Parts: sequence; structure tokens; C-alpha cells
Amino acid sequence: MAKLPQSCYVVCLAFSIVVNLSLIFKLYGHGEWELSWSRRAAEEAELVAAVPCSGHGRAYLDGLVLDGKEPVCECNSCYGGPDCSQFLTDCESNADSGDPYFLEPFWMQHASESAILVAGWHRMGYVFPDQSYISQELERLIRKVHAIAGNAVTQGRYIVIGAGSTHLVNAAVHALSPSSTDSLNSSSTSSSPASIVVTIPFYALYETQTKYFRSLDYKFEGDGSLLQNISDGSKRVIEFVTSPNNPDGKLNKANFQGPNSEAIYDRVYYWPHFTPIPAPADEDVMLFSISKLTGHAGTRLGWAVIKDESVYQRMLQHTVTSNLGVSRDTQLRALKLLNVVAQGRGKEIFEFGYNTMRKRWEGLNKAMSVSNRFSLQKNEPQYCTFSQKIRGPSPAYAWVKCEWEEDKDCYAVLQEEANVYGRRGSVFGAEDRYVRLSLIKSQDDFDILLQRMNQLVSQEDAQPQTYMNNVTKPSLRSKMYSCK
Amino acid sequence: MAKLPQSCYVVCLAFSIVVNLSLIFKLYGHGEWELSWSRRAAEEAELVAAVPCSGHGRAYLDGLVLDGKEPVCECNSCYGGPDCSQFLTDCESNADSGDPYFLEPFWMQHASESAILVAGWHRMGYVFPDQSYISQELERLIRKVHAIAGNAVTQGRYIVIGAGSTHLVNAAVHALSPSSTDSLNSSSTSSSPASIVVTIPFYALYETQTKYFRSLDYKFEGDGSLLQNISDGSKRVIEFVTSPNNPDGKLNKANFQGPNSEAIYDRVYYWPHFTPIPAPADEDVMLFSISKLTGHAGTRLGWAVIKDESVYQRMLQHTVTSNLGVSRDTQLRALKLLNVVAQGRGKEIFEFGYNTMRKRWEGLNKAMSVSNRFSLQKNEPQYCTFSQKIRGPSPAYAWVKCEWEEDKDCYAVLQEEANVYGRRGSVFGAEDRYVRLSLIKSQDDFDILLQRMNQLVSQEDAQPQTYMNNVTKPSLRSKMYSCK
Repeated sequence: MAKLPQSCYVVCLAFSIVVNLSLIFKLYGHGEWELSWSRRAAEEAELVAAVPCSGHGRAYLDGLVLDGKEPVCECNSCYGGPDCSQFLTDCESNADSGDPYFLEPFWMQHASESAILVAGWHRMGYVFPDQSYISQELERLIRKVHAIAGNAVTQGRYIVIGAGSTHLVNAAVHALSPSSTDSLNSSSTSSSPASIVVTIPFYALYETQTKYFRSLDYKFEGDGSLLQNISDGSKRVIEFVTSPNNPDGKLNKANFQGPNSEAIYDRVYYWPHFTPIPAPADEDVMLFSISKLTGHAGTRLGWAVIKDESVYQRMLQHTVTSNLGVSRDTQLRALKLLNVVAQGRGKEIFEFGYNTMRKRWEGLNKAMSVSNRFSLQKNEPQYCTFSQKIRGPSPAYAWVKCEWEEDKDCYAVLQEEANVYGRRGSVFGAEDRYVRLSLIKSQDDFDILLQRMNQLVSQEDAQPQTYMNNVTKPSLRSKMYSCK
Repeated sequence: MAKLPQSCYVVCLAFSIVVNLSLIFKLYGHGEWELSWSRRAAEEAELVAAVPCSGHGRAYLDGLVLDGKEPVCECNSCYGGPDCSQFLTDCESNADSGDPYFLEPFWMQHASESAILVAGWHRMGYVFPDQSYISQELERLIRKVHAIAGNAVTQGRYIVIGAGSTHLVNAAVHALSPSSTDSLNSSSTSSSPASIVVTIPFYALYETQTKYFRSLDYKFEGDGSLLQNISDGSKRVIEFVTSPNNPDGKLNKANFQGPNSEAIYDRVYYWPHFTPIPAPADEDVMLFSISKLTGHAGTRLGWAVIKDESVYQRMLQHTVTSNLGVSRDTQLRALKLLNVVAQGRGKEIFEFGYNTMRKRWEGLNKAMSVSNRFSLQKNEPQYCTFSQKIRGPSPAYAWVKCEWEEDKDCYAVLQEEANVYGRRGSVFGAEDRYVRLSLIKSQDDFDILLQRMNQLVSQEDAQPQTYMNNVTKPSLRSKMYSCK
């Protein structure tokens, strides 16, 4: 080996030491925890998240995998191919379900704060240390988020969690029905089943679930206005009030009053995404869900805010007797998500949610404003205490009416002429002249829906038409409010 | 600076290069993914898991935190202090609940394989891409684990998941009751409510849940033996058969046969931890749960294995109508846990489970063998197809009988004389001369229980005593079988 001059060794050594130091800093200098048992799960999650699905789909940890154990892309509607890059021109526009994917981009932007690592031994028992079925941290965050949004009074109120508001609907009906309440409410003079009523149009689950359980204690009677005239007040009436209403976004109020009437307020859409918040709601029984707050419909978690202790106890009993509480995994995830909502006092998620929904509503309104065949519901702009300004509507659903005399089946019109699949008016107890279109799905879903509706409206001049007598020119009804 | 000999520089440079290479290998040489958004969640989980709780407790991600955001230790029974290091001598021995913490050490030993990282955008929608409410990967693993344990036939069977077996109990009752089955079963001549029956002693939830729902379609009738004599076969009878039975571990079989009788087999304890597996179960409706398989009672997930398609459809409808399916978070975690179970063809978890339960049963049996005041149930040793040998009993619960005439309230005897809290015999429809002691809790729980029972038995000579007529000397009944 040729002998090098000493200065060469000195320079090399100095360089090597600098490299040493920088590597040591990179390894240990960030104050980062040296990961051990959690690394594998973290790597698995990042590998799956890194699967490229062209921005029109995503891969999941529990999705199907190819033979080589590569996770598979699950594509948005109208996109296909292994990487979701193919646009399928003849696809259906599915505007039926209430899958709240409109918030998915928000969570992708907040990946670090919203991820949760569940250890194999996380909460294996049935109850928390206080013998309850609810994480105290979760309950605290639920109250905090309501305080931030200003949409519900929770101070001095009880909270019960369930497997989504779906689970709590039955819990509330059961808790307010005579066999449960007789011993507590001496004014109840009858042990006949409670009448479950609702105002048309209404969310179908109230009817299907209440009928499904075939209880001795309650009976679904449908439209409350009929019962209102014949009721003498001796019968227990339980009224569902959805506010904002599904499908039409109206801030409904209870029609039944009096000592033998109870209302279950379904408040799942009462968040700044979907409606101005005029004041905190303060009803006796209010239902909320993480599905319509954070967009996690698949995470079955809802909660009820309850004034009366005995109603609380009975609803709690329902969730325990039917399901033995809500998964601890689900509670842990909800806690993490609500923690992100609460960051920055809710500004981020509520602004993202409102801006997205408002833009979609404006887009659809614009498309429909030139139509005399279709009209949309009119939701009034109102002062929103959360954003501290008057805000225009940003509803979760479009409640479309077919105005032409011959278009009695509006669902069929949209399906046959535009390949758009909504939800029939009759599903909500209304005429089939109405159809509900979901606006809360992915941006791809909405873009295709909007394109199809634009196309349909543009074809109107070529169609025969008969106006109904009571039509109001839709273009006059779709004035834009841009209050944000 | 003094000038060093050149050889010194050469050695230093060589050393520095070696250090550099080892650091580079450490940083990049493992083929490890460079973590980004998942790191924070992974660090949080490891930090919480590293909280020292003296081996007598653990801290959780969703537990309470001190002001300085330090997570708090949640101590096992009879341990206290900030780090669970204080033994509380006068504490209660709680042997009431069925919290399956006996498997917690197994999951701590398998931390890396069982951890799961849930991304903020994981499965936000209501359904999977095939429009179902169940992850296909989870269903595949459920079938695989049954094939490994050899405890149930799943080929050609349908699977429905629910929020624990608790949720599926009602789903099954509802699915098999007349209003659901009339249209499908022409031999049903009556539309009166189905009679729900069971053999004493039985798990209380069957009664509380069935009565709670107050359905028009079914009625809890209790002990089936009374009904058996008067039934003419025209009435629909739905029989709960728990096998192994809770509380006494017996491999029960249905008593009712015939075209108008249906059995719901609760098979949640039919795993090698708790019983020899003589053959794969193959009943029409079988219930299982992750709670008693992996020990995750807090993860509300159970499944039914069903032969008949129409019964499957009705049970599925129940889980959707009541809860809109099972949380995707819960399904993801269950999938991960079942994947660990399936590793090495189940040898690890089933051996760990059996060894733990067997050791506990032997310990308790030994303590009770010198007693003439208390006796335990006798579960026979049987050939276990999973372990391919004859195995002695390793039941989840001890079904203790107070043999002295005056000890009519066995629960009170244990509570007052030993500070042991079991579950009263009357909760299971039996005499209060019986009490159930849970053997599946943490090792700390079991150790204290055993110590208290040893002490109680040692005091027998000092007590007045009256034998019952039919007593069999317990010491003769507790012969040890050591077949593993």
C-alpha cells in the first residue's frame, strides 16, 4: 500500500468524525423515543397508506391483499383499475347512502394527530376502573366539543354512549315507554303502548327499528299530525324530532307538548358543517354521533345528552343489556378524533366541513337554478353563534322535488335519465315526487353527481313538460348566500 | 498541538470508519421503514406502556392523566399506591366478574404482533366495498381459527358478527321467533310467542335480556324441564344451551327436539383454554366471542355460525337494524388478534390458556380437597382433539356448593368469613347454596382468592358443622388429572 501524507489522514479522520457526529445526532438527537414493539404496527400502517391509488381510492389494513401480500386499492365510485386511475364513464352516480367521506381529506391532512396505536393488552376487561362502561376522558371530550361548537348544553346533563345513534334510538324509545316510566311518572294513567310519532319527511330507521323490535311497550304510529287531533293526553306519545331534519335540513321542533309527551331530539346533523348554530340545544333527550361530527360512520359511536337521571339510568341499562357497552377500541379512537376536533377550538374541522358542504350546495343550487323541472329545499340563512356571522345553508342532503306533473316517480326520473341513484321520497314517508341526494360522500362522488345533474338540466328544453299548479320558479328560490 | 505518530491517525480513522458503518447499518441497515405520521402514535403507546406499575397494574392511553400529563397506573385488586406497589391486606377478593385478564400476559409477550395502528381515515364509511358489514379478512380468520382449534364446523356455514355474544343472543332469539319464521316454516301452527327455555344453572343474561325487550314474539319461561312435560309440540320452543356451561363447565346438550324446537348453542367457552374439545361442534346456531377466545371482553365482538340461510339473513338484519353493524376499529383489532392466534396453528395461545387455567383449577381443587364444608363441580377429563391427548378440566368458573346444612347462603358465607365476593347461585336460577367464583381474572386476583379460600378451609375445624344427607366427601371428588 502506498504511504499517504499524514495531512491526508488528519483530514480523513476529521471528516469521518463529522459524519459520526451527524449520524449520532440523526439517531439519538431528536429526543425521539427509540421504538420497539410498536414499530411493526406503525410500519404496516404507513406501508398501506403509501399504496398509490391515484387520489381516487385508498388501501386499508384490513382490505384484501394480493398473493404477494400487496394491499389492494379500493376505488371511489366511477374509478377502477388496480390503482384507481381509470375513469368509468358509464358508471352509476350513487347518491343514496349517508357515508360521510367528505371529511376524509381532513383526516389525511391530520394524519399524525389522529393516528392511534392500540396495544394488544389494551383494556381487556368489561368495565373501566370506576366500574362504568364509558371512558371518563371520552366523556370529558364530548362535553368539551359541545362547548366549543356551542350546539348543546351539557353542564348538569348525563351522557350515555352507544353503538352509533342507531343504538341509542331504541334505547331512548325503550327508556321513555310506559313499562319503564310508569313507576316514575304518576301522571301516566294508561299502560297501553306508547305511540311513536314523527313528522313527514323522516329518517326511515325510526320506523323500521321501532317496528322491528315488536315491543309490548311502544308502537310506531307514523305521522304525528293525525294523532294530534284525536289524542286526549292520556296516552304516552314519544315524538322523534330530527333537527336539522334528514332529509330536508329543517330545524324542526316538537309538535307534542304536555306531561304525557316526550321528544327524542335527533341532533346528529346539528354541527357547523351542516347548519348555522343559532343557540345551544337544550332538550331533555338529544342524540349525537361521531359519524356526522368527524365523518366516522364506520366507528359505531354515538351519545345521548339527557336531563333526567332516571331516563339516563334506563338508557344506560339498555346499552348494557343489549351490547354490554361500547368497544374500548372504538372509545379510544373516538377520544383521539375528538381531541383533534377540540384543537384550536374546533376552527379547523368546522371550517373545513362548512366550506366543503357550502361549496357543494352552491354548486348544486347553481345547476338547479336554471331548471324548471327540479327544485331543491330552501334552508334559510341564519346567524351562527359558532362562526359569529350569518351563514347560508350547507345541508347534508338535497331534497329534490320533481315539479313536472308527469314526473311522479322522481327516483326513476333521475335513475333512467341521468344514471343517478338517490333515495326515494317514500322511504321518508313522503311522495315519490321527492328524492334525497346525499351530498356528504367523497369529492369524486359529488363531482359526478353534479356533472350528471348539470347534464340532465341542460336537456330540459328537449323534453315535454307540464308544470304543477303550485310550482315556484326554482331559480327564484335558489338565491345564494355567501356569509362566510 | 503535539504531533502524533501516523499509525495513531490510521488506527483512529479505522475505528471511526467502523463506528460510521455500524451507525449507518443501525439507521438504514434493517430494511426499516422511515416512520413519519405514525411515529407520534407509536411513541405515545410505548410511553404509556413503559409506565412502571410494579407488575400489579398498567397504564392505558385513555386512562386518567396527572396534571403533568403523566398517565396514571390502574392497579389490580388488592394493590394500591401511585405505582401499584402497596399490597392492601384487608381488600375484597372480587371473584364475581368474568373479566378474562388471565390472557393479558400472553398479549404483553406478543406486543409486536398484536399491536395495531389505526389511521385517522381508516374505514369511515358504513359498509365494506362488497356492501357488507363484515371484513372479509376477519371472516376468513374466524373460519381459520375454528379449523385450527377443531371446535366448530364452519365450512358451508354463514357467519354474522355482533357487539359480543350479548348482542347475538337477542339476534338469535329474534331470528328464531314465530313472527320472523312463520313465512318460512309452514309447520308452525301457532303465532303465540315462542317459549324461551334453559336448564338451571344458567347465565343470567338470557333471562334479563329476553325479559327486557318485552317482545310480542317471545317469552322467557325459565327452566325447560317443566315445559317439556306439558308441551304438545305445537308451540315454538327456543332453548339456550351453554356448552361448556356457565357456571358449571358441563358440556350441555339440548333437551328439546322436534320440528318446532330450536336451540341456540352458546359456545363461547368451547376453546382449549377451558375444556377438552372432543369434536367440532356442528349445531344450527352457535355463538362465539373474542372475549373468551383472546380475552378481549372490552372489544365487543362476537360471531354466530349458522346453518340456515334464512336464519342468517334475519340475524344479520338484527345487527344492522339495532347497531348498523360492528365498529370497523373493533373488526380491525379482532383481525389482528385472531392472526396471532392462528400463528403456529394456535399452539401458543391455547397452551398458555390451558396451562394457566389448569394450574388455577388444580390449586383451587387442592385447597378444597381438605374441606368438608365446600365442594366444587366435577368436570370429567376427556380426550381433546386439539392437544391429541386426554385432558383434565380447566374450567372458567368454580361452581362452589356449601355442604353444611346451615350454610344456605353460600355467597354470604364466603363474603362474611373470607371477604370473597362471588356471584350468587340464585343469579343462575339455582339455590343460594351455590356460588360462582371467577377463575379467569388476573393472576393477582386468583392468588388472593386462593389464599382466602385456603384460609377459610383451614378454619373449618373450629366451626360448628352439620353435613347434608347427600354429601359426597369432596376430597374423593377432586382427584387430579394431569394429562398435559
